[in-house]
Amino acid sequence: MNTTSVTSSKVHNFSAGPAILPQEVLAKAAAAVTNFAGKNLSLLEISHRSKEFVAVMDEAQALAKELLNLNDDYEVLFLGGGASSQFYMTAANLLPTDGTAHFLDTGTWSTKAIKEAKKYGNVNVVASSSDTNFNYIPKGYTVPSDGAYLHLTSNNTIFGTQLKEFPTSDIPLVCDMSSDMFSRPIDASKFGIIYAGAQKNMGPSGVTLVIIRKDILGKVERDLPSMVDYRTHIAKGSMFNTPPVFPIYVSMLTMRWVKENGGLAGMAKRNTEKADTLYTEIDRNPLFKGNVAAEDRSVMNATFNVVDEAHAAPFLALCAARNLDALKGHRSVGGFRASMYNAMELDSVQALVQAMRDFETANA
Amino acid sequence: MNTTSVTSSKVHNFSAGPAILPQEVLAKAAAAVTNFAGKNLSLLEISHRSKEFVAVMDEAQALAKELLNLNDDYEVLFLGGGASSQFYMTAANLLPTDGTAHFLDTGTWSTKAIKEAKKYGNVNVVASSSDTNFNYIPKGYTVPSDGAYLHLTSNNTIFGTQLKEFPTSDIPLVCDMSSDMFSRPIDASKFGIIYAGAQKNMGPSGVTLVIIRKDILGKVERDLPSMVDYRTHIAKGSMFNTPPVFPIYVSMLTMRWVKENGGLAGMAKRNTEKADTLYTEIDRNPLFKGNVAAEDRSVMNATFNVVDEAHAAPFLALCAARNLDALKGHRSVGGFRASMYNAMELDSVQALVQAMRDFETANA
Repeated sequence: MNTTSVTSSKVHNFSAGPAILPQEVLAKAAAAVTNFAGKNLSLLEISHRSKEFVAVMDEAQALAKELLNLNDDYEVLFLGGGASSQFYMTAANLLPTDGTAHFLDTGTWSTKAIKEAKKYGNVNVVASSSDTNFNYIPKGYTVPSDGAYLHLTSNNTIFGTQLKEFPTSDIPLVCDMSSDMFSRPIDASKFGIIYAGAQKNMGPSGVTLVIIRKDILGKVERDLPSMVDYRTHIAKGSMFNTPPVFPIYVSMLTMRWVKENGGLAGMAKRNTEKADTLYTEIDRNPLFKGNVAAEDRSVMNATFNVVDEAHAAPFLALCAARNLDALKGHRSVGGFRASMYNAMELDSVQALVQAMRDFETANA
Repeated sequence: MNTTSVTSSKVHNFSAGPAILPQEVLAKAAAAVTNFAGKNLSLLEISHRSKEFVAVMDEAQALAKELLNLNDDYEVLFLGGGASSQFYMTAANLLPTDGTAHFLDTGTWSTKAIKEAKKYGNVNVVASSSDTNFNYIPKGYTVPSDGAYLHLTSNNTIFGTQLKEFPTSDIPLVCDMSSDMFSRPIDASKFGIIYAGAQKNMGPSGVTLVIIRKDILGKVERDLPSMVDYRTHIAKGSMFNTPPVFPIYVSMLTMRWVKENGGLAGMAKRNTEKADTLYTEIDRNPLFKGNVAAEDRSVMNATFNVVDEAHAAPFLALCAARNLDALKGHRSVGGFRASMYNAMELDSVQALVQAMRDFETANA
């Protein structure tokens, strides 16, 4: 543990999202805004149907499948509208009016997904941790064996919880992985749909990755708007309309970076080391306490608080003085939240731990 | 007329969209990817709820209203999903199941808007130029006095037509201005909704400007998904979910540039000069012909062709040799298309005209 970061001008970016991206990705993204692919034109001003951008889209789709070890039963889309649009698009495409969609309710994002699905059919909540403001992941529930699909949220940014294992089900699994996409190896072939807003581990806001096992589509009788029907985008290779070119390019660069840094196993190693470093200090330091059941703690977003509320403001002030940025917890939880996405280096977490130790010493 | 561009490395970007943006906007956009607002963080990795980005959103909304001289009866939204999503969202929000939406069909984009609206209610096409592959704007039709709304497309990128005047109607006017937004002064207060994909005159792809006169909403009984209901976005100041941060920032910079360069009157002067320069040459040069009825020619997108089809390939080759980029016409029309959006300088049009003259001389 060193304390060089205390005097460094490096900003340690703990933002929950939009969030930290690899420095080399940002450098390449900035360069492309000036001159893309040697064309003497900006990436922002070329046709999405130019061969240079078609190559970007192709590589982005291939990288997503390669990282997740998916075969051609799956299609990779990059859509606008945010993961919030997937809350209703999943139901619109998969849930018959007289059918039932099942949900594991782990708070906020799954709660929103439930609300939108109700507009299309019946909803059954298989389990919820709402009784304790979502500070754990419900377990021991009966996995439904019939119904349109089971919807999960793999990681909750606000409460700092994460599903460590995914159930096996005979019905399609639909999973919102917005905040831990590409952070760890998963058996992606278990899922019917995986969707993820880019702005955590993948790229800037403005694009959502949607991965679909094609055989689950076409089973609902509903005259959907073309843009809402996944089949529209699949038929056109995610180019039915002008896609969000720049966010897709940056996402492709980030997936390249993930691949070059050990793939999902490499990310899990990085992320576990960071999370272990922080949670160990949270548990050791008598001035702090974690929010979440230990076995459900998120490797991406650690939520914690001071034991003595009077310490909250001075601790945040110390963090600010040390360029430890965006650590204030979400308003619905309070306290602190340290988001440690793929691109965060261990030294940023070490700088936070050092601040916690120094705060302990100063308040002994 | 000079020919310096022949030997210059400047690429003359005639792309129909995504399209040319002001060089100073691109320079600022690239800088923000590296370090935004002096935060030592990239614009791509900061929270959309940071005070720095909230200021961007506020300025973008204010600039849109200022440029269009709109009062607080109107709300400005920046949404994901492209103008293609507005094809169905306008109908979903405004068209009762037993109501009628009226359309002026000027090809491709209005045809798509008609298709999506039919999913929500009745559609009436007041006039169409489909009989001659949309090479003119229908005129002399009866403007409907009842119905949910009248939908117009102000400019057609593919055919190169443009509405020079807008009808006055007792029912809300809904206008897709994707390809000539902010290109000329308009009486924006005539419209109930104006929408425009950013990737022509405003910014990179990935965001759509939607301007709504608030009193036209709330008249349709339909349980819309939250993301589809304009009222959701109005209630949250276009921040219901994470917005497309970077495309919004670049759009804001471009609107600043428009304001600094004479506003919409300044843009109209620039654009008319460029269009007059090109159309004059198309009409003078015996080797070329325009596609569109003279009075309906677009100031943004000039479509033209060679008289002798054998000249098509060699003319495109000459253009390529002179860095006159993206001049090939859309596949549904053929020939050539020169898009001359706001940011294009006169010298690029002059370089194209010079190429046409030199081609004439070489083929005399």
